[in-house]
Amino acid sequence: MSDFSFRTSHDAGSARLGWFSTPHGVVETPAFMPVGTHGTIKGLSVEEVTAAGAQMILSNAYHLYLRPGDMMVRALGGLHAFTRWDGPMLTDSGGFQVFSLSSLRKVTEDGVVFQSHIDGSRHDYTPESVMRIERNIGADVIMQLDELIAGQAEYGASQAAMERSLRWLERCRIEFDRITRDGRGAPPQFEVPVGAPPMATHDAATDIIPPRQSLFPIIQGGVHPALRVASARGILDAGTWDGIAIGGLSVGESKPDMYATLEVVDPVIPRTVPRYMMGVGFPDDLVEAVRRGVDLFDCVAPTRMGRNGTAFTPDGKVQVRRSAFRNDRRPLVEDCPCECCTRYDRAYLRHLFVSEEMLGLRLLSLHNVAYLIDIMRQARGALREGRFQTWSSAWLARYHAAGAHGVTT
Amino acid sequence: MSDFSFRTSHDAGSARLGWFSTPHGVVETPAFMPVGTHGTIKGLSVEEVTAAGAQMILSNAYHLYLRPGDMMVRALGGLHAFTRWDGPMLTDSGGFQVFSLSSLRKVTEDGVVFQSHIDGSRHDYTPESVMRIERNIGADVIMQLDELIAGQAEYGASQAAMERSLRWLERCRIEFDRITRDGRGAPPQFEVPVGAPPMATHDAATDIIPPRQSLFPIIQGGVHPALRVASARGILDAGTWDGIAIGGLSVGESKPDMYATLEVVDPVIPRTVPRYMMGVGFPDDLVEAVRRGVDLFDCVAPTRMGRNGTAFTPDGKVQVRRSAFRNDRRPLVEDCPCECCTRYDRAYLRHLFVSEEMLGLRLLSLHNVAYLIDIMRQARGALREGRFQTWSSAWLARYHAAGAHGVTT
Repeated sequence: MSDFSFRTSHDAGSARLGWFSTPHGVVETPAFMPVGTHGTIKGLSVEEVTAAGAQMILSNAYHLYLRPGDMMVRALGGLHAFTRWDGPMLTDSGGFQVFSLSSLRKVTEDGVVFQSHIDGSRHDYTPESVMRIERNIGADVIMQLDELIAGQAEYGASQAAMERSLRWLERCRIEFDRITRDGRGAPPQFEVPVGAPPMATHDAATDIIPPRQSLFPIIQGGVHPALRVASARGILDAGTWDGIAIGGLSVGESKPDMYATLEVVDPVIPRTVPRYMMGVGFPDDLVEAVRRGVDLFDCVAPTRMGRNGTAFTPDGKVQVRRSAFRNDRRPLVEDCPCECCTRYDRAYLRHLFVSEEMLGLRLLSLHNVAYLIDIMRQARGALREGRFQTWSSAWLARYHAAGAHGVTT
Repeated sequence: MSDFSFRTSHDAGSARLGWFSTPHGVVETPAFMPVGTHGTIKGLSVEEVTAAGAQMILSNAYHLYLRPGDMMVRALGGLHAFTRWDGPMLTDSGGFQVFSLSSLRKVTEDGVVFQSHIDGSRHDYTPESVMRIERNIGADVIMQLDELIAGQAEYGASQAAMERSLRWLERCRIEFDRITRDGRGAPPQFEVPVGAPPMATHDAATDIIPPRQSLFPIIQGGVHPALRVASARGILDAGTWDGIAIGGLSVGESKPDMYATLEVVDPVIPRTVPRYMMGVGFPDDLVEAVRRGVDLFDCVAPTRMGRNGTAFTPDGKVQVRRSAFRNDRRPLVEDCPCECCTRYDRAYLRHLFVSEEMLGLRLLSLHNVAYLIDIMRQARGALREGRFQTWSSAWLARYHAAGAHGVTT
């Protein structure tokens, strides 16, 4: 798989500086990847996400499969062309959404049958169909389908889901390899409006060739160290991978359990591939996880909290509707390079939220995304300059000290 | 009032090219002014509004008086500093909002008593208090308080409201002159957070000097030509003005009545001042009104319709959720210079609206605002090149032909 590579330098304990190469560019790690569930980072334009320093973004196969449809995304030239993001991109399989959003789901060894949360229509999600969907969508990195259970699940249930996820990984790999070998088949046909340029897939000769993609496996096993190790070993036995994800975290377990799980898998995963911790996006969790060897992160938290009026700051989370902001002319976060902090003050930001103005949601979503990206940029700088332990300890001390006291200015 | 001036050239019938100078810059007319009711053009940043070609924007004294308060806006340095818009700005008095939004309003010769639509609190709105509010907010152009009634009101009711509006104009002018002469009085005092920069008004010596502003009167009289003429003559008898507004249009009357009203007042208003038609913002109304001598426009329609998924196009209004757009890779409007049309296609725009994504609202609001601004830019070009009659006739023919047939591609 020569289209993907990873090299590292400047280790500091388990942390390291890395460069993950994809067909759409190189990601310097550790890095936070903003999430565009429906093919758009909520509230933000591609230009803003780029200006915030994003190197790689996420989208979600479940949502795009339902709307506008993976075949439609393919017909429109793939997700890069559709969204105008031309950098590295990753799709989650949508397994998490099937388990959390859909109703009447039924899980068997074959896969998941579920009803759409949009219109109640019935759908089959199997390891094979998910590979076809993600191959149609065309992100650089695509995730396996895995079985998800609650973070505090007991050993037996966690073991069963973990072992099924390993069997599903094998089926994903076989289908992924089949598509790679045989192509994607006939292009989708849609009636094209008069005067519209032809859709990308109207070139049938090239469209059967699948995009250059990489399949990432996902380590499961809940909070049970033995299961996490078994999952990681099972994945390594199953093939060679360009990257390995750690899933099933930040789903209800305690923070000590989350960090302990990272410490358990750290020595098992080869240091030659990037490690992607799925769905984790609180500032302190990122810093703790980088210390434990994680390279990539994603989470909807920065945009979701931004829409709710909660700001990430070096001193913890802050509600921007707070009355103390009504006449505060300072930037939200001093020295933050984002548009929200360089152009506007707290008084105006509060006014926008109190008046329920969309610009407030935009600015705060942008700040929170830029803030997580910037923490990872700081971490890379500290690694490069050999001061990562000092930097991360000081960062965490400030964050927790302020948070514990509710200090928010 | 040397801080404001207006000069014109290139007349074409009643239409003309003009330059309206304000303390914050020159507005080339005819021009459309986007509306930022709460001190933000809904969904858009100042940079985007600037890039769309906006020269002057509006805000609303009623809304800013209630939130964050006109004294707070003043303490924060005035509306330009608060919003980061450093170009020409206008505030409507909020009379329209008092009459349309508030409950339990009571209108007397003194003014209006009303309850806030936010918290039910009781407020007095008089010509004098409105002047103080608008002087605190600090826009370049401020509007008189007038009495509003339905567009189809009968002669007697229209006459009474028009005559009261004239009396209120006189009271506005007296209070405006008093503030100009005596200053705004002691600055507001608010507790400043530790570490925050001092607020603009903490310099008491300069803050008592009111900003350089101009008071615009408003012609009323409903759809009754005699009343419109009487209103315009009453305004001219009452003083010298830097600009004159035409109010009470697009409030339920027919389009022929709207255009006829413009034709009635056109010969009465001196051609030495800009004419501002309030609250009118549909593309065809703008072109029709420019032909009848109007120079300035404002309306919330482009952003409101943008949020609802309706696009302005040269061929009429288009719903972007329409299924024909699902695989249409053309820009929304060919050759439109806005970000929505230069970067994205109809398929993606439709997907954003179907998925209820904020970026869709943003892009379409931006397009609609940019579109009205661009029509006025085209009108100025046509005036400059002596082809305004041809241009406007062709523009209106295309717009109405398509709209009549529901043609939307």
